[in-house]
Amino acid sequence: MIQPLAWQEGQLKILDQRKVPWSLEYITCTTSREVAVAIQELAVRGAPAIGAAAAFGLALAARGLPGPGAGDDADPGLTPREFGRALEEEARELEGARPTAVNLSWAVRRMMGVYRGLADRGRAEILRGLEEEARQVFLQDIAVNRRMGELGAGLVPPGSRVLTHCNAGALATAGYGTALGVIRKAHRQGKVQEVYVDETRPVLQGARLTAWELKEEGIPHVLVTDNMAGMLMQKKLVDMVLVGADRIASNGDTANKIGTYSLAVLAAYHRLPFYVAAPSYTFDLGLDNGEGIVIEERDPAEVTCFSGQEVAPAGTRAFNPSFDVTPHTLIRAIITEKGIIHGPGRDKISNLLQG
Amino acid sequence: MIQPLAWQEGQLKILDQRKVPWSLEYITCTTSREVAVAIQELAVRGAPAIGAAAAFGLALAARGLPGPGAGDDADPGLTPREFGRALEEEARELEGARPTAVNLSWAVRRMMGVYRGLADRGRAEILRGLEEEARQVFLQDIAVNRRMGELGAGLVPPGSRVLTHCNAGALATAGYGTALGVIRKAHRQGKVQEVYVDETRPVLQGARLTAWELKEEGIPHVLVTDNMAGMLMQKKLVDMVLVGADRIASNGDTANKIGTYSLAVLAAYHRLPFYVAAPSYTFDLGLDNGEGIVIEERDPAEVTCFSGQEVAPAGTRAFNPSFDVTPHTLIRAIITEKGIIHGPGRDKISNLLQG
Repeated sequence: MIQPLAWQEGQLKILDQRKVPWSLEYITCTTSREVAVAIQELAVRGAPAIGAAAAFGLALAARGLPGPGAGDDADPGLTPREFGRALEEEARELEGARPTAVNLSWAVRRMMGVYRGLADRGRAEILRGLEEEARQVFLQDIAVNRRMGELGAGLVPPGSRVLTHCNAGALATAGYGTALGVIRKAHRQGKVQEVYVDETRPVLQGARLTAWELKEEGIPHVLVTDNMAGMLMQKKLVDMVLVGADRIASNGDTANKIGTYSLAVLAAYHRLPFYVAAPSYTFDLGLDNGEGIVIEERDPAEVTCFSGQEVAPAGTRAFNPSFDVTPHTLIRAIITEKGIIHGPGRDKISNLLQG
Repeated sequence: MIQPLAWQEGQLKILDQRKVPWSLEYITCTTSREVAVAIQELAVRGAPAIGAAAAFGLALAARGLPGPGAGDDADPGLTPREFGRALEEEARELEGARPTAVNLSWAVRRMMGVYRGLADRGRAEILRGLEEEARQVFLQDIAVNRRMGELGAGLVPPGSRVLTHCNAGALATAGYGTALGVIRKAHRQGKVQEVYVDETRPVLQGARLTAWELKEEGIPHVLVTDNMAGMLMQKKLVDMVLVGADRIASNGDTANKIGTYSLAVLAAYHRLPFYVAAPSYTFDLGLDNGEGIVIEERDPAEVTCFSGQEVAPAGTRAFNPSFDVTPHTLIRAIITEKGIIHGPGRDKISNLLQG
């Protein structure tokens, strides 16, 4: 099984996804700052994966702080209150690494909640508690993905040709995958005829990561450029679109990798189902709708370069929003670990997640 | 002015567009075979440009054949009949270089028509006639582009933000451009606020060629990846889509660079005008509708590699259709040198082109 993250003796090993599929190298992080940089620079990416990485990041942050009660008389270390403040600062840095995926702040806030329950305990207990919680975030995500896979596979009829965008696979999560988890499960059930893999410019997560995962698992797939989706649908080569999500507002509006919205419009035009697979913690119930979702804009050099090589005249301006927002009206169903929300909207979402 | 082709003392100089914008190098062709290879390998691309190149290619073919009447008694060269047959063979090779753009066979057939009118003349007269006709194909295309620019600019309101795909500029024609010709003219009239340039995978004609042309002319532009078009429209950053064409059926169905169809659907969904600019000789009135248009499929390595660098795991299958077909119902208007066809359909097209 592909492992994007591994916790080993107080260190977080992060598979450097910028180098996949050419090499499988792990970065060793011993500080939360290193984790934040790995998230920012896309060594680890994918909403659930950066959530889990940040959870371990906070465990590392606590280990790196002196105290509480760690010092001796000569250097008593931080007081519990100082420790809490310092940890909160590191939490904010982790949360700020990327703005769009809600899983990042969800994981960090969950960790800080556990810390608050332990704030008056000794250092060893706090560190153990945080490490254990990070492991839970990680293991829970794998279990949740497997459950989504089981549920979502029910939406995939035999002989399906599925179009997917970006990478919503094992690499984007703690393991198994959201959209690719559904595809994995449906494939085990013998129902996947072909996966069309959007290359997903500018960072090519489809070409590099999804194609690699599918190859490793022996799932039949064909790589296409992002601009071929319409033609594939027009020629009736695709039966459904299946993607992940970075943040879902309370009405079902969904932020996901740039290009997702175009696919949703194209699917609607061709009367094809458009499915989103995402764990319940990708919902941001504090947001009324998708307009409130902050869309990260990254370095234009990601667009003016292709795999490290310049592809446009020097000085060319470029626009590089990393995500777009698909209105819930274009989504046939959202697959969560708690159930499938058909024709997603505010009430159905609230009923499933809070009911 | 950017010159993709130049005829100099019996040689055809072709700007090697595979190397633009990094270098401006001309390939010298002295045989029709060399021209066919340059077309096949995309040194010259763009429907009108390959038409003009093929016209010169046929002039080169005639120069390369011995006879008619070229030899002396010891070696009398080809008879007129043999010469005609040999020329027809070279014409077929040129026509076969790429299948989708109709301009290629249009230009070759036009040249062969001129040849047939001269078939019983002497060698010098034939060569002079063919060379003169190729020049006419070339010069006519520039004049036609300028006329389309004038007509089309009338469709561009002040402050327009125009999305274009691939390269339908000076490089894609004998000069000036079809879609970019309209943009050029509208810009001179002070009406273009921004041009959004689709990078246009897999060959990146937008990033490499269109961005370069617009930069050279000082027309404001922003490079985007192909998958951003939907988001740009959703955010109301684009007022119209303007593209060229490779072959237009008698009902207005239009083959153009892969991704064009997706843009047309997205434009329709967002109620934005979608315009095609193409000379009258891009119409193939022998075709009832777009289903008859042969779509070239090129080497999958164009998708799995860039500049020789792999961007997907070794052995990844890829699909690489170079064009798609946009039904005429999604096209607001086709801009030709003979007039603008609003709401294009069989009758309006026939009236304008044959009336």
